[in-house]
Amino acid sequence: MGTIDDRLAELSLVLPPPMVLPPGVVLPFAFVMVRGDRAVISGHGPQNADGTVAGPFGAVGDDLTIEQGYDAARLVGLSILGSLQRELGDLDRITGWVKALGMVRCGSSFTKHPAVINGFSDLILDIFGAEVGAHSRSAVGMSSLPFGIPVEIEAEVLIS
Amino acid sequence: MGTIDDRLAELSLVLPPPMVLPPGVVLPFAFVMVRGDRAVISGHGPQNADGTVAGPFGAVGDDLTIEQGYDAARLVGLSILGSLQRELGDLDRITGWVKALGMVRCGSSFTKHPAVINGFSDLILDIFGAEVGAHSRSAVGMSSLPFGIPVEIEAEVLIS
Amino acid sequence: MGTIDDRLAELSLVLPPPMVLPPGVVLPFAFVMVRGDRAVISGHGPQNADGTVAGPFGAVGDDLTIEQGYDAARLVGLSILGSLQRELGDLDRITGWVKALGMVRCGSSFTKHPAVINGFSDLILDIFGAEVGAHSRSAVGMSSLPFGIPVEIEAEVLIS
Repeated sequence: MGTIDDRLAELSLVLPPPMVLPPGVVLPFAFVMVRGDRAVISGHGPQNADGTVAGPFGAVGDDLTIEQGYDAARLVGLSILGSLQRELGDLDRITGWVKALGMVRCGSSFTKHPAVINGFSDLILDIFGAEVGAHSRSAVGMSSLPFGIPVEIEAEVLIS
Repeated sequence: MGTIDDRLAELSLVLPPPMVLPPGVVLPFAFVMVRGDRAVISGHGPQNADGTVAGPFGAVGDDLTIEQGYDAARLVGLSILGSLQRELGDLDRITGWVKALGMVRCGSSFTKHPAVINGFSDLILDIFGAEVGAHSRSAVGMSSLPFGIPVEIEAEVLIS
Repeated sequence: MGTIDDRLAELSLVLPPPMVLPPGVVLPFAFVMVRGDRAVISGHGPQNADGTVAGPFGAVGDDLTIEQGYDAARLVGLSILGSLQRELGDLDRITGWVKALGMVRCGSSFTKHPAVINGFSDLILDIFGAEVGAHSRSAVGMSSLPFGIPVEIEAEVLIS
């Protein structure tokens, strides 16, 4: 096992399997697109352990608390790591996180997007450490997201 | 003619001319920014054959059906290809699609963003094939978009 | 002083200090992430001269005029330049702007996002000139943004 696999085991984290899509949904794109030394990661949502899209669904601040939003963002991070592991074979190939665009479904008066997307950033920093895990980030409010998920995140890493 | 030009002809696709802006609108940026081997594509909307911004306008799910949203996303793809052709001279210079951020104008309960942005992904894959055309993607919901367009997409390709 | 510093002085522009966060806000990410020759810039908001988040707060078109939105986008540009100067040491290291994603908080019928984000683009072009300052751009409408700011922009530059 690699260093990151060891770290995942240490934290008792299990990565979800490939996404199990709702009936009728077709996603004709790559969940992770490797071009040169970049792995560009599609927008991911939270997954259950069986691969299905995880609830709770709704808007953070209205239907979900900030803590529930934070947990959803953390699940999105695990979903992204699952996709990266399947595409790269070994998460130790990640030499540095580059960026993340964190999108929170919420109402027009919501202001605490950073506290929600911290669920993702804290996870990545905890697993990869302060140097490899460091990343730029935006956290913004969307009027809606696919399947009713509360958080969607797209990201990019450099690989060897 | 190049390979992609042949493919466009085969599919009877005609790329639109440069965008004809509504009166008073100033866009002081590059529609395609080439830096090194990357061509980074600004947010594009759907265009008519005369270059003007194409309707129907409004929110997908409210004012437009999903099929109309799909068609708009396809028009956005053609608009992007027009900009790429003018900037690159030859679409065969594209060695690989990298990513697309697909933004759908819709209400807060809309959930079928992927079905809309598939209008773009299907077009790119149809023209460039499964290898060069593969791309990462996000599809998300915006409260509003410039000019009232229902879909805006920004993207990136690698070039030789 | 470098060329860009001279230009800032010529324009009587002063870059704000590091962001002074509201109480309780934790931002565990890099405001600018340098990876190789890329400097990837997190979503920034407008800052006051003392580093605090600058008002006016609210939605452009509802609570703020387009001119106020333009001014906010310009302040976001200055905030980004402040972060770049602290991270890079010297703004002359910027060899080319690549892209900007301009996010405007506004209501669902707003259509003039480009006129708002021009406050950023005009500033960058004025300081860096037509070649280095050229960039691709998207301007889109968000239902909400952190702290109630009217404009958030993320961007990328190439550096030497």
